[in-house]
Amino acid sequence: MSIFLVDEYKDMEPYVPGEQPKDKPYIKLNANETSMPPSPKVFEAISKSEIWNMSYYSDPHCHEFRRAVAEIYHVKEEEVFVGNGADEVLSFVLMSFFRRGMKIYFPDITYGFYRTYAKTYGLDMEEIPVKDDFSIDINDYMELDGDIIFANPNNPTGLTIPTADIERLVKRNPNRMVIVDEAYADYSGETCLPLAVKYPNLVVVRTFSKSRNMAGAHIGFAVSSRDIIEDMNKIKFSFNPFNLNSVTMAAGIAAVKDVDYLHNCVTRIVKNRENFQKELESIGFHVIPSKANFVFCYHDAIDSGILCEKLKEEGILTRHFADEKLTKYLRITIGTEQEMDVVLIAIREILDEVRQKQSVKEKKAC
Amino acid sequence: MSIFLVDEYKDMEPYVPGEQPKDKPYIKLNANETSMPPSPKVFEAISKSEIWNMSYYSDPHCHEFRRAVAEIYHVKEEEVFVGNGADEVLSFVLMSFFRRGMKIYFPDITYGFYRTYAKTYGLDMEEIPVKDDFSIDINDYMELDGDIIFANPNNPTGLTIPTADIERLVKRNPNRMVIVDEAYADYSGETCLPLAVKYPNLVVVRTFSKSRNMAGAHIGFAVSSRDIIEDMNKIKFSFNPFNLNSVTMAAGIAAVKDVDYLHNCVTRIVKNRENFQKELESIGFHVIPSKANFVFCYHDAIDSGILCEKLKEEGILTRHFADEKLTKYLRITIGTEQEMDVVLIAIREILDEVRQKQSVKEKKAC
Repeated sequence: MSIFLVDEYKDMEPYVPGEQPKDKPYIKLNANETSMPPSPKVFEAISKSEIWNMSYYSDPHCHEFRRAVAEIYHVKEEEVFVGNGADEVLSFVLMSFFRRGMKIYFPDITYGFYRTYAKTYGLDMEEIPVKDDFSIDINDYMELDGDIIFANPNNPTGLTIPTADIERLVKRNPNRMVIVDEAYADYSGETCLPLAVKYPNLVVVRTFSKSRNMAGAHIGFAVSSRDIIEDMNKIKFSFNPFNLNSVTMAAGIAAVKDVDYLHNCVTRIVKNRENFQKELESIGFHVIPSKANFVFCYHDAIDSGILCEKLKEEGILTRHFADEKLTKYLRITIGTEQEMDVVLIAIREILDEVRQKQSVKEKKAC
Repeated sequence: MSIFLVDEYKDMEPYVPGEQPKDKPYIKLNANETSMPPSPKVFEAISKSEIWNMSYYSDPHCHEFRRAVAEIYHVKEEEVFVGNGADEVLSFVLMSFFRRGMKIYFPDITYGFYRTYAKTYGLDMEEIPVKDDFSIDINDYMELDGDIIFANPNNPTGLTIPTADIERLVKRNPNRMVIVDEAYADYSGETCLPLAVKYPNLVVVRTFSKSRNMAGAHIGFAVSSRDIIEDMNKIKFSFNPFNLNSVTMAAGIAAVKDVDYLHNCVTRIVKNRENFQKELESIGFHVIPSKANFVFCYHDAIDSGILCEKLKEEGILTRHFADEKLTKYLRITIGTEQEMDVVLIAIREILDEVRQKQSVKEKKAC
């Protein structure tokens, strides 16, 4: 630590992203990414002339990209903000609309980065406990004295809050900002996007990292009322005007326009999730009914932390969280059919091994 | 403006980047970019497999990229921070080491974004007047009570502060942070980079937007002591961990390793600048002796604002600033030989036109 670091940041613990070990090839199912490629249109868009075009600054207003997003989602360009990943978009929301000491509420079980943001921006955060089944009761949020952020579907559970509930919350609290992080909404099919341009206190944030198979491109966007977006652009122009580079925007425009490819990939992942869940349940797993591109599950015969370690030995990365409420579970991202087949083979082998050890123990006990 | 915007930002004026009109093709010499392509190695690096690789998150620690930068500049990976453009890198410096109300000093003639940053971060900024010839006297900065930021070479003048002067300043003020923005240092050949790892209060910021012909990639980096870089990474991981996407990093790694290409491009631009300056002087221009990839100049026969407008009519963009101290001058980016030839033809024609009008007036007066 240098002598120059601002005091408020001295004890801050930065967010820890999912691990990326490089010691051998892995089936990577720990960060809700995919091994499926971006749309073929993205490959076409990143042409040699587009690479040469990198010699000039990109459009800081991102007009073409925002127009493309607006068209697909039936909103106006002025209602769309695009950024260097949903994390950056959320950071601009926090920078623009929150000052040190302001209250922010979110569920105690959700995307870990909200806690990081609250600390970064010196907010007074309060975590509202989810129910025993991990569901969120909107009534817990109805009468609060601060702004609210949700992930919908939630992470790492995959559970959703009905859109009608969110509308009720937003309507009831016109002076409270409600931020809905819809990173996984393409998989659930439920979205607040149309509401975001109807209510001036609702901001919906989306990412290209999940359903568009472009985590490495790091593109996110927000849809909200014209005033909110204008404010966010003002802050962006004061922080880093050229936040999306030219090649990334070309890729983003191509991806957002390829609606069929998005639809096909989402359909495939949802089908793989359903099949995977059935298979897991058939071998005794308890699985939360996820609406996202991952499942959150556990098996009575094996500690999830140990299962995570054993899968890693087999070259399969999954995500195990240390938090008390989560430690029983393992989050497994849904990949291709082949990847899920391999995961199931590995899980079955690990369970067999556990059972064999158990039966040896029992025999010895006899 | 929404009801949610934080009060401090309500009167903030965001930075206005150089214009990017699209009504016709332009020779773009207004934002210190170039029409020369990135290194051929960059074209090779953005392969189809690299595009597919976008489906996974990039390395948030940017190890490979930081190692590549470190190797070229003879420093350690731990002494390098990479970001989404020098603007973002500077923003992280400001976020990490400045709190509301802290003092920051910079020359009154310099990159306009420093003023924007100071307002964004609520700093108490003081602008120190440059000398009449636009030069900066380091003695004006020796005994101040706040941190300091310089662009070296300075923008829009192209003048440099000797490295020995900056070392004297840094040595004399161990508790004051000195930030040196070396966006144009490849053209001047003078750099504080070796000092940045020697003194724990010096941060040097660089960009790929100028000498590496990659403005559209928006890559920047900082070199400083290990502690400073560790602090900046902590803040980055709390704001937007994946700030550089995978394709951008692949491009950056390829570019930084191609030292010969950088050298050739810089040599070519410096030669073109020297020739262009000579030509301008031969037709009566006053030209500041720039060490960057632009010249700052004026002609007694024509107002620089009008010259800028007339060049734009001819499809040539240059930059004219409204500030009182700058309005006499025009900043012209140095492009390829062909581009500078065309600019000279246009300027000569505009001057001829002015002279003809003048002589008609004089005849009428007789």
